[in-house]
Amino acid sequence: MTTTELQSLIDRSLFADLGYIGADGRPAIRRVFCVWHRGMGAHLISTNTSSGHVKRLTEHPDACLYFADSEAFEGVCLTGRAAPTRDRALRELLWNDGDEKYYPLGVDDPDYCVIEFTAERAEYYRYDGKGALDAAQLDATARGRAYENGYERCRAQQAASTEGSDEA
Amino acid sequence: MTTTELQSLIDRSLFADLGYIGADGRPAIRRVFCVWHRGMGAHLISTNTSSGHVKRLTEHPDACLYFADSEAFEGVCLTGRAAPTRDRALRELLWNDGDEKYYPLGVDDPDYCVIEFTAERAEYYRYDGKGALDAAQLDATARGRAYENGYERCRAQQAASTEGSDEA
Repeated sequence: MTTTELQSLIDRSLFADLGYIGADGRPAIRRVFCVWHRGMGAHLISTNTSSGHVKRLTEHPDACLYFADSEAFEGVCLTGRAAPTRDRALRELLWNDGDEKYYPLGVDDPDYCVIEFTAERAEYYRYDGKGALDAAQLDATARGRAYENGYERCRAQQAASTEGSDEA
Repeated sequence: MTTTELQSLIDRSLFADLGYIGADGRPAIRRVFCVWHRGMGAHLISTNTSSGHVKRLTEHPDACLYFADSEAFEGVCLTGRAAPTRDRALRELLWNDGDEKYYPLGVDDPDYCVIEFTAERAEYYRYDGKGALDAAQLDATARGRAYENGYERCRAQQAASTEGSDEA
C-alpha cells in the first residue's frame, strides 16, 4: 500500500480501535469515534474523562490505534502513545453543536476530555502484501498540516460509495 | 445489556478485533474473520500460521477479542487467552470450499492454522450503561453447545436488515 492509500483508509473511517494494556496487564480494546487527523500519525479523540480507558491511559499511555476496512481486507495498526488531556484549545477544537447531550456542562464539563494519540510506527497489510512505516515517514505525512476534521469528507465519500453500489 | 443482547451482537458480527501484546510489550490489534462461536466465551478463528499475531500468541497467549457495532454504539471486550493450534479436527471443521485460494495445500497446508480463543471475563457497554460477566456466566452461555458456524445466519440477518432500511 502507498502512503496515499493508507491515508485514504484512515480518512474514510469514522471509527478506529484503541488498544491499550488493562490494569491487570492484559490487552484491552475500545472502539472510538476518530475523525480528527494530522497526517497519518497524529489523531484526536474526544471521550469521557470517567471512562475506563482514559483512567488506564493516564497511568500507562502505551497504545495502538487500528484502522481497518473488513470487506476490503486491509488494515493499519499505529503503535504509539495515547495521552488524555484537558487542554482547553483541544476541547474547543473538537466540540460540536449538540455535544451537550453527552456533556451537559459544555466545553468545561469535567467529564469531557480529549485523547491525543501520537504514533511512532505503523504496520499495515492488504491482500497484496504488508509493510511498515517508521516515525520519520509518519512525521512526513503531517508536515505543514494542522489537525483537520475529516467528518464531512468521510460522510460525503460514504454517500458517494453507497450511491455507486446502488447503481451497480 | 442482557446476555441475549450480547450474544446477538456477537452473532451478527462477521469480524472481531483481536488484541494482543506485541514483542515490544506494547498493545497490537488485528481484525479477524470470526464466525465460529460456542456461546459467548469460546471462538475459533482460522488464519495464517506465518502471520505476526500467530507467532506472538504462541509465545504470549494473553489476548482480548472485541465485538462492536459502531453505529449502535455498543461493544463487548472478552479478555482471555488465544491459543494457535494445528489440531486437525479444528482445521477440518473450519475449512471451506475455496480456501485453497489462501492455502494451496489444503487442510494440511502448514500455513493453515486455527486460533482458539477462550474468555475468562467480558466487559460491555452500550448507550444505556455498562457491565461485566465473569467466567461462570460465560461458561453458562456455552453449556450443552458445540462450536457453531454463524456465517449463514449472519449473512441472512444482514440482508434482512438492509432490506428493512431500504423500505424505510
